[in-house]
Amino acid sequence: MILESKIRPIEWAGNHVKLLDQTLLPYEQKIVCITKYQEMATAIKDMIVRGAPAIGVSGAFGVSLGAKSLINITDKNEFLKKLEEIGESLKSTRPTAVNLAWAVDKQLELAQEQILRSAQDDRVFIDEIIKKLEENAIKILNDDIEINQRMGEHGTKIVPKGATILTHCNAGALATAGYGTALGVVRSAFARDNTIQVFADETRPRQQGARLTTWELVEDNIPVTLITDGMCGYFMKKGMIDLVIVGADRIASNGDAANKIGTYTVALVAKAHNIPFYVAAPHSTIDMSIKSGDEIPIEERSREEVTHINGKTICAEGVNIINPAFDVTPAEYITGIITETGIYKPSELNGLF
Amino acid sequence: MILESKIRPIEWAGNHVKLLDQTLLPYEQKIVCITKYQEMATAIKDMIVRGAPAIGVSGAFGVSLGAKSLINITDKNEFLKKLEEIGESLKSTRPTAVNLAWAVDKQLELAQEQILRSAQDDRVFIDEIIKKLEENAIKILNDDIEINQRMGEHGTKIVPKGATILTHCNAGALATAGYGTALGVVRSAFARDNTIQVFADETRPRQQGARLTTWELVEDNIPVTLITDGMCGYFMKKGMIDLVIVGADRIASNGDAANKIGTYTVALVAKAHNIPFYVAAPHSTIDMSIKSGDEIPIEERSREEVTHINGKTICAEGVNIINPAFDVTPAEYITGIITETGIYKPSELNGLF
Repeated sequence: MILESKIRPIEWAGNHVKLLDQTLLPYEQKIVCITKYQEMATAIKDMIVRGAPAIGVSGAFGVSLGAKSLINITDKNEFLKKLEEIGESLKSTRPTAVNLAWAVDKQLELAQEQILRSAQDDRVFIDEIIKKLEENAIKILNDDIEINQRMGEHGTKIVPKGATILTHCNAGALATAGYGTALGVVRSAFARDNTIQVFADETRPRQQGARLTTWELVEDNIPVTLITDGMCGYFMKKGMIDLVIVGADRIASNGDAANKIGTYTVALVAKAHNIPFYVAAPHSTIDMSIKSGDEIPIEERSREEVTHINGKTICAEGVNIINPAFDVTPAEYITGIITETGIYKPSELNGLF
Repeated sequence: MILESKIRPIEWAGNHVKLLDQTLLPYEQKIVCITKYQEMATAIKDMIVRGAPAIGVSGAFGVSLGAKSLINITDKNEFLKKLEEIGESLKSTRPTAVNLAWAVDKQLELAQEQILRSAQDDRVFIDEIIKKLEENAIKILNDDIEINQRMGEHGTKIVPKGATILTHCNAGALATAGYGTALGVVRSAFARDNTIQVFADETRPRQQGARLTTWELVEDNIPVTLITDGMCGYFMKKGMIDLVIVGADRIASNGDAANKIGTYTVALVAKAHNIPFYVAAPHSTIDMSIKSGDEIPIEERSREEVTHINGKTICAEGVNIINPAFDVTPAEYITGIITETGIYKPSELNGLF
């Protein structure tokens, strides 16, 4: 059972990508038109588009737009080399979420395969590959929505009747091509039982919980209570939280999961109260090439994300800042991983892929 | 060894109280002059002055100012009755911190005792008690600074060389008459070993960590790193935090301690990493009349504290808010309670008082 949501943070408009500028939500709903791969790289870096699956889809379109910029190249090997450089520049914008690298590599592999197979002359080949990359980006976008909806269906199994679900950051429609991972599970569960509700962590420093999760749940009429990040212990101790569902930016083969900074703290607090802690993420978030979360690179972002809110400083000058954007929750704190093919224990990932 | 600090949030100016307006820090250093007890009640409620010991001292001055407003009363029993009403109005401004009630009651007891003993005529008695209440408020203020300095001395024993100390909210000079409880320990430790440093939790919703703790530590040249509330798990897992020291608003006889919302979350995360967790608080914070933290009333504050920062909304309209200002950390998570007479295990309080 799907709860229809109109929220579409990424849309393909025939010759450009339309991104809903997530740095301005909930104050303003502004669409940014992306016509060049460089603009897409900047949009990902500046978090106009954010969320592991969403930056994956955006990266795929980035490669497609990049291919179009190579239209005047006549040699197919040179074309491929340039396209790989474009792919690298896109991948380097954000290091933690593996979906970005996954989607960019999907596009590059498509181009590489075509080159191996093609006996056509270079000009025809390049025109064709440009068309295929666009089609593939559109497919990745549509697949993502469908994957989220399947994930949502599987996830409903672990949501008790009338549950209050705590989530951290935004793993919603806005973090994907639509529907959401953690909030996709919420949407599917709410379609069956409209007595469930969400508690949303504010998620400092960038406040994706306050700005994005409250906005998209209010839009879809799902009851949501905003709490500050330190409050999770208070509400868990009072028995007001039934389960936690969060997204992920990268899951190691042992089940360790990187997600927005603060997630690990929530996981520890959930464990102390025996509250189930689930991660909802598509297969493309699982990185079987790494053994544990220790191998996941943690992006450090700017000082200003911590020291300023809405352009105004919140602290004394002269304070030190360390701003890791993600943390890793060890597998032992994760009750289950909700994917498009079912729910798995962290230890089961190795047997699956 | 005392680290001199010039920060004095409350000063007696002969006929009025000067409060450093803590709602404006670190942006502006504005002094508010309090001449009437009603103004003091408002200043406490609006958190112009905040921190358990500081609102205790302020409450004592509130009673003193209230007594002066009764100067025209000629009957000493009527005077006492009115003074008790003023005391109740001051105590009701903030329910969680017991220091406020403690200091107000100290003043009322002084007046009550004087009445019992006095054989003087009412007019002379009232003039005298007004004078004594002022002297007693000044004594409570001066005692608080001295108590904090003794607490700081005892606390140095548990600070390892070169330690990084995590604190939550502001239990500093600003939260007291001067010097601070948790930050008093930091000051005394820093006077001996200037390689120690502080990590300060931002402490949403009111950001006392970001606004006040960073300000007062930068003022006193003690190295401080500001982190968001969700980050504690990340830094503890990395081994970057050696111990936690926080203040308290009320400690029950079993050692359960109420402190700023988010403290319990930090305590759970510290426990998971085997990091010592200390509470620094004067005897006046210990409420032997209650058996456990379950009996501590938790103040709920306004919706706007969560939904707005610096006057600007940070979330979607239509979101629900619950805003408990404090949480209770059970005694089992507290390594020790640092007081002006020494450091005790939570279980030792019952034998002490």
